[in-house]
Amino acid sequence: MPTIELELMEAIKKVLNYDVKIYASGRTDKGVHAIGQVIHFDIETDISEYGLMKAINRFLPDDIRIVELNIVGDDFHARFSAKSKEYHYLVKINNYTVFDRLYYARYYNLDIDKMKEAIKKFIGVHNFKGFCSASVDPRKDFVKEIYDAHIEDNGDVLKFVFIGTGFLKYQIRRMMGLILDIGLNKDTLETIDKVFEEKDPKISHMKAPAEGLYLVKVNY
Amino acid sequence: MPTIELELMEAIKKVLNYDVKIYASGRTDKGVHAIGQVIHFDIETDISEYGLMKAINRFLPDDIRIVELNIVGDDFHARFSAKSKEYHYLVKINNYTVFDRLYYARYYNLDIDKMKEAIKKFIGVHNFKGFCSASVDPRKDFVKEIYDAHIEDNGDVLKFVFIGTGFLKYQIRRMMGLILDIGLNKDTLETIDKVFEEKDPKISHMKAPAEGLYLVKVNY
Repeated sequence: MPTIELELMEAIKKVLNYDVKIYASGRTDKGVHAIGQVIHFDIETDISEYGLMKAINRFLPDDIRIVELNIVGDDFHARFSAKSKEYHYLVKINNYTVFDRLYYARYYNLDIDKMKEAIKKFIGVHNFKGFCSASVDPRKDFVKEIYDAHIEDNGDVLKFVFIGTGFLKYQIRRMMGLILDIGLNKDTLETIDKVFEEKDPKISHMKAPAEGLYLVKVNY
Repeated sequence: MPTIELELMEAIKKVLNYDVKIYASGRTDKGVHAIGQVIHFDIETDISEYGLMKAINRFLPDDIRIVELNIVGDDFHARFSAKSKEYHYLVKINNYTVFDRLYYARYYNLDIDKMKEAIKKFIGVHNFKGFCSASVDPRKDFVKEIYDAHIEDNGDVLKFVFIGTGFLKYQIRRMMGLILDIGLNKDTLETIDKVFEEKDPKISHMKAPAEGLYLVKVNY
């Protein structure tokens, strides 16, 4: 199966005539979209930023595009230099069509006010062990900070915005799973506190669909 | 290549166990989207509207869905009973991403006020020979009425709405081509009058991209 990483490596090789290794700011699950993914790679060729971008884009398939390319110092690392990330989760609540199926989650009868209360509870420094994949290495640091989390209501589309230091595997889809369950009146705000306290990924295990999630921006 | 018509015929056959012929309200070009296409077919089976819709949808691929199914009288014909049609043409003017490439046309620096003047000129009864495919049979009736045509400005997206008795092959894409050329200051409002007068499809031949066009509704 073609991956974005492989397609990029092949396109860059076609331009430069040698192999490069690519480092991304992080991985995205299958079905998740990246509008603002950042990668870095080392080259030895003297070429302008704009020229290199145009040349690589020419060899990329229609659904992958470099939108900005900058020459940076040796100390820059797409993953380790990242200070924060912004993700959006899009839910279509009206006028759903087949053309939306890969780009939105879809839910009916959501209590938006209750979800606005729910999403606020994630802001701040928390141990997110109960909100990520159970397969994450337990020695990992589960304490992360969410700087901002809010909902923008566009009528047909709800945009859930999350900005934070970094997110664990499945973390946003698991947080969204609980927020949506609360919006559907299948669960309550208290469950958020309970998962934070008990740090048990089994308490609330609804993982919202991948197609609603977008990595929008990586800040350095 | 699979067509929507063939996929529907196959799915219906799987449900009813016999072949049906499908009649649509009209054809759409390759790449054009149909949110509200209407088809009719004759069956001899006694089955509820909802039951038949669910059963057919189960055999359709993810990108085709029946959203409403009604049992109608023998005198109904999807094409000949149609009184008017509504089309939308979507242009993304900001924040364009690869995820939009199949669902929007994309233009920069459009003069929206000028396009609002341009689109108004299409309202009314006109001979649209100069605005359709040159391959249309010259004995065809080129006189059509457009009841309403206007632009809705959503910030990132411009929605061009056309409601009329019926549209000739390429007519909306050719009208949009000229409207966009006027918005780009490549052409002027006077050209619209000229094409109506001279009825020559060669005067203004920019055909706007198919991916922006949606058949939204057929009225009976």
